[in-house]
Amino acid sequence: MVTNLQNTPLVVGVDLGGTQLRVSVLRGTHLLSRVSALTRDFPTPDLIISRIFSAIQQALEEANSTLHQIVGIGIGQPGSLDNRTGLVFSFPNLPAWHNVPLQHIFQDRYARPIFIDDDANTAALGEFYFGQGCGYKNMVYLTISTGIGGGVIVDGQLMRGARGTAGELGHMTIDWHGERCSCGNIGCLESIASGTAIARRARKAIAQGAHFSAAPNDCIEQQQDEVDAQFVARAAIAGVPEARAIIRDAAEALGVGLVNIINIFNPEIIVLGGGLTQMDEALLIEPARRIVDARAMRIPYKDVKIVKSQLGPDVGLIGAGALVYSRGGSKLPENP
Amino acid sequence: MVTNLQNTPLVVGVDLGGTQLRVSVLRGTHLLSRVSALTRDFPTPDLIISRIFSAIQQALEEANSTLHQIVGIGIGQPGSLDNRTGLVFSFPNLPAWHNVPLQHIFQDRYARPIFIDDDANTAALGEFYFGQGCGYKNMVYLTISTGIGGGVIVDGQLMRGARGTAGELGHMTIDWHGERCSCGNIGCLESIASGTAIARRARKAIAQGAHFSAAPNDCIEQQQDEVDAQFVARAAIAGVPEARAIIRDAAEALGVGLVNIINIFNPEIIVLGGGLTQMDEALLIEPARRIVDARAMRIPYKDVKIVKSQLGPDVGLIGAGALVYSRGGSKLPENP
Repeated sequence: MVTNLQNTPLVVGVDLGGTQLRVSVLRGTHLLSRVSALTRDFPTPDLIISRIFSAIQQALEEANSTLHQIVGIGIGQPGSLDNRTGLVFSFPNLPAWHNVPLQHIFQDRYARPIFIDDDANTAALGEFYFGQGCGYKNMVYLTISTGIGGGVIVDGQLMRGARGTAGELGHMTIDWHGERCSCGNIGCLESIASGTAIARRARKAIAQGAHFSAAPNDCIEQQQDEVDAQFVARAAIAGVPEARAIIRDAAEALGVGLVNIINIFNPEIIVLGGGLTQMDEALLIEPARRIVDARAMRIPYKDVKIVKSQLGPDVGLIGAGALVYSRGGSKLPENP
Repeated sequence: MVTNLQNTPLVVGVDLGGTQLRVSVLRGTHLLSRVSALTRDFPTPDLIISRIFSAIQQALEEANSTLHQIVGIGIGQPGSLDNRTGLVFSFPNLPAWHNVPLQHIFQDRYARPIFIDDDANTAALGEFYFGQGCGYKNMVYLTISTGIGGGVIVDGQLMRGARGTAGELGHMTIDWHGERCSCGNIGCLESIASGTAIARRARKAIAQGAHFSAAPNDCIEQQQDEVDAQFVARAAIAGVPEARAIIRDAAEALGVGLVNIINIFNPEIIVLGGGLTQMDEALLIEPARRIVDARAMRIPYKDVKIVKSQLGPDVGLIGAGALVYSRGGSKLPENP
């Protein structure tokens, strides 16, 4: 954990999510200001981008800062980005978003360095510079949320690959004859262990007659829109067999994914982030650890740490800032 | 392909395999001498190491070189190595090999830099510097042989991980409820698509009554020791249904493994090496490509090249030399 932040330069972090967009002026983990808005209130790329512009202005004002004091703007976003062209191809639940040249749009607007990456990569950088990954050289960040994403630090550098899409750890097949994933592939980790997958499986079980109403305070058996991973987790705790089976599958899939990560990357540390890590550990993380303990190769497994994210809900903003430090004119000392 | 080798320094390459040990004095891809011996003739670590010492002496003499002209000795070997301690934990089919400090033993013997890595990593470096990977920054080498191994180049550097075991691509689970692999994990790529897996499945089918004798010139139905991947491939070509199913599974598994590699690493190029790539392409590589074409994520898939190794049987020696160039006092220009 970097605690002396005095020499850490001031940056703007933009955490552009499918639900919320958040902007902050920050110095390392220290957020001088916060501005947020609901993404769905701005249903086109133009409207979203305008809202980010005004949020940046507001965040600067609230932090008593000017653009000149900022060494760069980092943007974490959930779409798939081609870092050769600077295009963001798509955006969750926003069909109008198609090949938006986000990098160029921000560069035209601001005379500061602009850095864009996917939100799993920025979160990985946040944890690497300022959270659990501090002091290590080889770290894997795995976010388990509506989807499953990854960011991989190899020998102190974020692994980007040829076009910047590397680290799609949610889209590794672990069940080669399994269900089709939203990405088109078969049996991806995401298609079993993500929040979306857990909810989809629960809705299917309910449609087939399963009674999830054993979950205390839930009378929404027929309101399938409200079936989410937390609902299924509560039903599992309450003893609903179908819910237990769905969560057990998710935990096993997560364990298998972690085994693959250990065997493939031989990391020093794996950091787990995303909403599903808030689930009772006995449901998801503990059974996954038992799979890892039984199956991972001995040498890379021996010293690997598997921990939860330290930065919590601010990981997106801190990570967007860390993206600037990792790529831009940072005076931040090398990690470790 | 590096063609001007005049400025490439002289190195010793040691390709220590489970079947054969080979030593060469070489300059890039140019082998000035070759010495080989059967590994099984030297059944203890001490005997193997003594034989390598004498082979190095012989290779130097045949190349009219002295140790002083050599910038380093590179050793590719099939065991698992801990690069923090320099210990090689194990060696195929050699139970007496246990935690052998190979690095120290060679350093004590030779006053030259010694570099040791696993044979998939050295082969990857060989292809990266002198073969198909030349000119790229992000390359994955996958060797499909008795086992399946990988070597991954990330942004121009071999990915080693915390203890140097990274890149165990044969030991990613693709069939989470599948068979147990020799590594202890379940449903590894290696447990379906390796030569050993193909032969094991064929022996099982034969034991259950399958008639593999449709393969021309093969009358060895009951001689299970002689059932290897090439035998199964010939039976598949001859139309034996069980052989076709086994090879079809291997090809599908290979395709799934390649999809995972593309999604995880976003490489520019994947180089396939190892004996099984010599199999009729219609049996293994073509069906694997069709899986990749149908399932890989679009952006990383768009430009990726999947090609066969260029260096052939010398990849082990050339790779052992490339290990010296990648780590040691190389004057070799950066790739590309």
